[in-house]
Amino acid sequence: MERVKRIQAGDVRTASRLIRNLEDGMVEARSTIKHIFPLTGKANVLGITGSPGAGKSTLVDGLVESFRKKDKTVGVLAVDPTSPFTGGAILGDRIRMQRHAEDPGVFVRSLATRGALGGLSRAVGDAIHIMDVMGKDMIIVETVGTGQQEVDIINHSHTVIVVLIPGMGDEIQAIKAGIMEIADIFVINKADREGSSKLRREIMAMLDMAPPTAFAAGWRPPIIRVENAFEPEGFAKSLEELTSTIEKHYEHLVKHDLIGSRVRRKTVMELNEAIRTCILEPVLNRLIANGETEAMIEKLINKESDPYTLAEDVARRYLKDLNL
Amino acid sequence: MERVKRIQAGDVRTASRLIRNLEDGMVEARSTIKHIFPLTGKANVLGITGSPGAGKSTLVDGLVESFRKKDKTVGVLAVDPTSPFTGGAILGDRIRMQRHAEDPGVFVRSLATRGALGGLSRAVGDAIHIMDVMGKDMIIVETVGTGQQEVDIINHSHTVIVVLIPGMGDEIQAIKAGIMEIADIFVINKADREGSSKLRREIMAMLDMAPPTAFAAGWRPPIIRVENAFEPEGFAKSLEELTSTIEKHYEHLVKHDLIGSRVRRKTVMELNEAIRTCILEPVLNRLIANGETEAMIEKLINKESDPYTLAEDVARRYLKDLNL
Repeated sequence: MERVKRIQAGDVRTASRLIRNLEDGMVEARSTIKHIFPLTGKANVLGITGSPGAGKSTLVDGLVESFRKKDKTVGVLAVDPTSPFTGGAILGDRIRMQRHAEDPGVFVRSLATRGALGGLSRAVGDAIHIMDVMGKDMIIVETVGTGQQEVDIINHSHTVIVVLIPGMGDEIQAIKAGIMEIADIFVINKADREGSSKLRREIMAMLDMAPPTAFAAGWRPPIIRVENAFEPEGFAKSLEELTSTIEKHYEHLVKHDLIGSRVRRKTVMELNEAIRTCILEPVLNRLIANGETEAMIEKLINKESDPYTLAEDVARRYLKDLNL
Repeated sequence: MERVKRIQAGDVRTASRLIRNLEDGMVEARSTIKHIFPLTGKANVLGITGSPGAGKSTLVDGLVESFRKKDKTVGVLAVDPTSPFTGGAILGDRIRMQRHAEDPGVFVRSLATRGALGGLSRAVGDAIHIMDVMGKDMIIVETVGTGQQEVDIINHSHTVIVVLIPGMGDEIQAIKAGIMEIADIFVINKADREGSSKLRREIMAMLDMAPPTAFAAGWRPPIIRVENAFEPEGFAKSLEELTSTIEKHYEHLVKHDLIGSRVRRKTVMELNEAIRTCILEPVLNRLIANGETEAMIEKLINKESDPYTLAEDVARRYLKDLNL
C-alpha cells in the first residue's frame, strides 16, 4: 500500500492527514491502520499525566530535548487542553515548542478532546501506531486529569509518569483514587515551591500503604524532583535523572518479562474500542440520518416513553441475536 | 409497581439498592427506571465541577445547609474521587458530612468512577431520576475535572457551577477548553488567598472574548467569591449570595423558556447512553463469556490480525444490517 510506504518513510503530511481522518472517524482511514498494525510494536511509549498547571508541557519539552541528545527520534501526542500543542497555552509556551517544529526527528500532533462517543482513546491508539511505523523511537502521550478517559489514554503506554506540584491540597486524594494504580514514576514538579517535602512524604506514605503486589516485580515507583524550569542547569540535571529513570523502568519491564502484560492491557482496550467503533457508531449514525433519533427525543421529552424501552427496541431492530 | 411506590414514599433503602444495581449494570433494575421515568422532571438539578482541591465538598456541604434552611429537600450525588462521600477525603471532611446523614430531608449517594464501558454518566442520569421521584427539590451532582466524561455528567444539570481557586496557574486554560462552555456560574473559592483578583480578571477577560451567542438569552455567568470556610460568618454570607444566584439562574431559564433546551441536552445524552447499554454491552459480554475476546487478544498480540478487521467481523456476526 502506497500510503503505508510513505508513512514508513516518515512522511509527515501523509501521517498528519491520516491521524486527522481517524480522529474524525472516517471509515476509509481504517484500512490503512489494518496494514499498519502488523508493523507496530517497536517504539517505547511514555504516558505523562497530571493536573492543569502542573507544568507537564515544560517537562515534555525537556524530555524531547534529552531524547534528541541521545539521538532518539521522538513523537509527541498531546491530548491536553492546556497543552501548547492543542492551542490552549500562553504565547510563551507556544514559542518554546516551536523550535522542535524545525527538527525532522520530532513529530508533534495534538488530538482534540471532543468526540462524545468516546473515540478519543481509540484515536490516540491509532496515532501511536502511526508514529511507531514512522520509526519514532520514543512516543510521548501527554494528557490531563484523572477521569476514566484519561486512564484509558494513558494505558496505551509502557511507562506512566504522574506529575504533581506542591500545594495542591487534596490532589493526592485524586491520585489515590484514579491514577495511582498506573503510575510507574512520580515527578514532583516546581519542587522549589513550598510544600515540596510534604508532598514527597505524602506520596511515600501512600506507597507504603500499597500492598506489595501493587509493584510489578518489585518496581516501587521512584519520586523525581524537578526544580524551576527557569534555572537551566538544575532543570537539565533533573531531566537527566528522569530520563535515566525512564530507561531503568523500561529495562525492568524487559528483564522481568513485563512488556507482555503492558501490551496486553493496551490490546484489550484497543479491541473494545474498535468493537464500539464498528457496532455502536454505525447504529447511532443511522438513527440520526433517518430522523429516528429526533423522533425518539421528542417522545422522551413528552414522557411518552423512556430511554431503556426505546433502546431495547433499537437493539431488537439492529442486533441479530436478541438473547445476548 | 410496589418498588416505585416505595421510592415515591422516599424509602432510602429501596432507592439505594436500586442505584447500586443500576451502577452495576443489572438489566432487571432497568424495568424500574422504565416506570420511574414518566414521573420525573420536578427537581432542579445543580452540577458542581472543578479541580481536586478546589473545595467543592465544603461548598456542597454549605449549599445543603442553605437549601435545608429554606425547607427544600436535597439529594447529593458525588462522582468525585476526592469527595468525602466517595471515601477519598480526610477524616475531618467525613465527620463534617456526617450530620446530614441524620436529616431525612437529605439523601446522599456516591457513584464510583469505575466502569470502563463508560456507563458512569448513564448511572448518574438514572440516580437523578430516582432522587427526583423520591421528591427531592434540589439535586446536587458533584464531579471533578474537565474530561468528556465529566462534561457528560454535568450536562444532566439545569445549572452548572464551576469552582476555581486562586493560584492554579494554567487552570483557566483548561476551563477555556472544556468546561467554560457549560458554566452558568463561576465560584472563586478560597477567595482570601493571594491571586484572587487576578483569577477574577482572567475569568472576566475570558467572558469578554466570548461571542454574545455564548450567553443563553443574555445570561453572562456571574462570578461569586467564597471566602475561607473556617470563618463562619463570611462563609454563610457568600453562600447566601450563591444560593440566590442559583435561584436567579433558574428563574432566567424559566422566563426565557430555556428549561426546554437544557432538558433536550440531557435527553439526547440519556438516549445515546441507553442505546450503548442495550447494543454494545451485551455484545461485549457475550464475547467475553464465550472466550472470543481472549482468542482475539491473542491474535492481536501475535500480530495475526488487527483490531478493525476483528471488530468488523464481530459487526458482521451481530448486526442485522451490514450496510449501516
